[in-house]
Amino acid sequence: MNSRIKNIYARLEREGLDGLIVSLPANISYLTAFTSRDAYLLVSKPGNFYFTDSRYTEEAKSNLKNIARIKKINGSVFKIIAQTLNNLELKRAGFEERYLPFAEHKKIEEELRGSADLIPTHSWIEELRQIKSQDEIEKIMKAIQITSLALKFAKKIITPGKREIEIAAELERFIRVNGAYGNAFDIIIAAGENSAFPHHRASRRQIKNNEPVLVDIGVDYDGYKSDLTRVFFLGKITSTFKRTYDIVLKAQQRAFEAIRPGVSVNKVDRAARQYIGQKGFGRFFGHGLGHGIGLEVHEEPHISSKNTHRLTKDTVFTVEPAIYLPGRFGIRIEDVILVTEGGIKVLSGTLDKST
Amino acid sequence: MNSRIKNIYARLEREGLDGLIVSLPANISYLTAFTSRDAYLLVSKPGNFYFTDSRYTEEAKSNLKNIARIKKINGSVFKIIAQTLNNLELKRAGFEERYLPFAEHKKIEEELRGSADLIPTHSWIEELRQIKSQDEIEKIMKAIQITSLALKFAKKIITPGKREIEIAAELERFIRVNGAYGNAFDIIIAAGENSAFPHHRASRRQIKNNEPVLVDIGVDYDGYKSDLTRVFFLGKITSTFKRTYDIVLKAQQRAFEAIRPGVSVNKVDRAARQYIGQKGFGRFFGHGLGHGIGLEVHEEPHISSKNTHRLTKDTVFTVEPAIYLPGRFGIRIEDVILVTEGGIKVLSGTLDKST
Repeated sequence: MNSRIKNIYARLEREGLDGLIVSLPANISYLTAFTSRDAYLLVSKPGNFYFTDSRYTEEAKSNLKNIARIKKINGSVFKIIAQTLNNLELKRAGFEERYLPFAEHKKIEEELRGSADLIPTHSWIEELRQIKSQDEIEKIMKAIQITSLALKFAKKIITPGKREIEIAAELERFIRVNGAYGNAFDIIIAAGENSAFPHHRASRRQIKNNEPVLVDIGVDYDGYKSDLTRVFFLGKITSTFKRTYDIVLKAQQRAFEAIRPGVSVNKVDRAARQYIGQKGFGRFFGHGLGHGIGLEVHEEPHISSKNTHRLTKDTVFTVEPAIYLPGRFGIRIEDVILVTEGGIKVLSGTLDKST
Repeated sequence: MNSRIKNIYARLEREGLDGLIVSLPANISYLTAFTSRDAYLLVSKPGNFYFTDSRYTEEAKSNLKNIARIKKINGSVFKIIAQTLNNLELKRAGFEERYLPFAEHKKIEEELRGSADLIPTHSWIEELRQIKSQDEIEKIMKAIQITSLALKFAKKIITPGKREIEIAAELERFIRVNGAYGNAFDIIIAAGENSAFPHHRASRRQIKNNEPVLVDIGVDYDGYKSDLTRVFFLGKITSTFKRTYDIVLKAQQRAFEAIRPGVSVNKVDRAARQYIGQKGFGRFFGHGLGHGIGLEVHEEPHISSKNTHRLTKDTVFTVEPAIYLPGRFGIRIEDVILVTEGGIKVLSGTLDKST
């Protein structure tokens, strides 16, 4: 059995449980190293079982050989899960309370008819996923390399007259040709006043001269994600824009300087937020400073003013301060960093930040 | 208030509830005609509220003006939802049991401290969504048109030596340039023996001469999805392939002939499945015959041997019989149909089915 599953066995023992029903796809992927969809995984010492339907059973069989037995869902998956718990004589099975829908919990409970207890568990696997292995860091770096290439390419093809959606289309093609499995989220191309919407969807709006264009792109490389943002300025850069851009850039630098093992997450958020606040733009930076990234684009730790979790070596997260001026423009600069023993390594460090 | 929300008001009254917490993004989009992400919607006669964070509040405000008031999430969304229920003096609030995670239900309940009851509801909005309006049908048709163009383009660019992932990259670009917002799911390009995996992911495998290539593609047009599959054969078509292909094609025809208002879904599934079974390939067709399509790629009704729901006019779903021969090849032919008064209209009817 692999060390990640052994970790779960140990946790089960500590918590007095005899099995864990895993339902978040990224968590199943983490434990099995197999990209999972439409499946449930039961982890238990007497046996691990992977429940999926006929579309995936063949692939699952060849990939999960030494990890779990495959149970083909043919009817109610909840009945099969309950039967499996019973066959293994498990009495206290954990489930992922953050992901299991109310109705699914109810159905498994109904099928069990009291033969076992379902116990809510919270973020067991997400906690493990915060600390990246060397292999995971390499995959994230590969995703970042492709994304950096895509941003350089974006800078070249963004010209007045092109539509946001056309730029997105070219980038979609580009990342795949350059080795990504696909995008990690809808590519954001936001021209002019659209850049003031933090999560604008690429539209048919044409890009004009003398305006900023925000590009936020992430890719999937072998299951691992990247997420980078740059803002390019077309034509003559206005002084307002330049001043605002520099504030965001310095705020990011402040955050970088605050990052090291042992520091609590909210201190990192505060370093950037305080600087933006001092410059008078506090109310134009509404979201958190960043988020963990790995098998999911957004994962633990969420870098916010409320998170008192302390940073550990080998944590990977984004640092993306921003200023959004409604009706005018928005600036966000986003990089991905790795917490190292000595402080940080900016994984996207080679990517230019000039506008 | 729009008629869809009025429908919910009426249902609330019939069921003796005074509010509904909607959490499935597609359901929120359906009720508000606004593409929703990371949000909750409370529908209640005393007032509708849309809960989202600072990334989306600006867009939400301008789009939901006459539908709901926006509450910016700043801290715990569950606390705000509970406070809103209390402010409106709602006593029995429904929630979507299929989508609300166990932990979120628990948190809202904790915040309410008994001031209101949370009542599970099942598929209220999904039921409404099964019957498409003229406007929705037009959007689906537009999505299908773009997809049909993409499949014609695919046939042209699929040549020996190209990699599956390269074809996927070109198609990703193509659909956006032709007006799609993006894909509806990862485009499937499955060459040779890969086509025997129903949900193969496009890989770096090169396409060879004298083998089939399965292309399954769907796009998003203004929130509405398409989903079509064709199999192209490169070079000399083997007689085994041709025979199998014809069986799948005829099975689809049998299903088409069975479709009309009032017929139960399992009869439609059976029409295709029985034919494939008679030809000796029953065990090589493991999945359901199709699925409803609209704001989600997979929605109600699921066309399976177990669904006894009766078809109604203006229902839209896929019909996708298949035969998968492990280690050899797979064939799936997928079209989207509309149930009409007189029977069916194949919305993707103009798209060629020759290999």
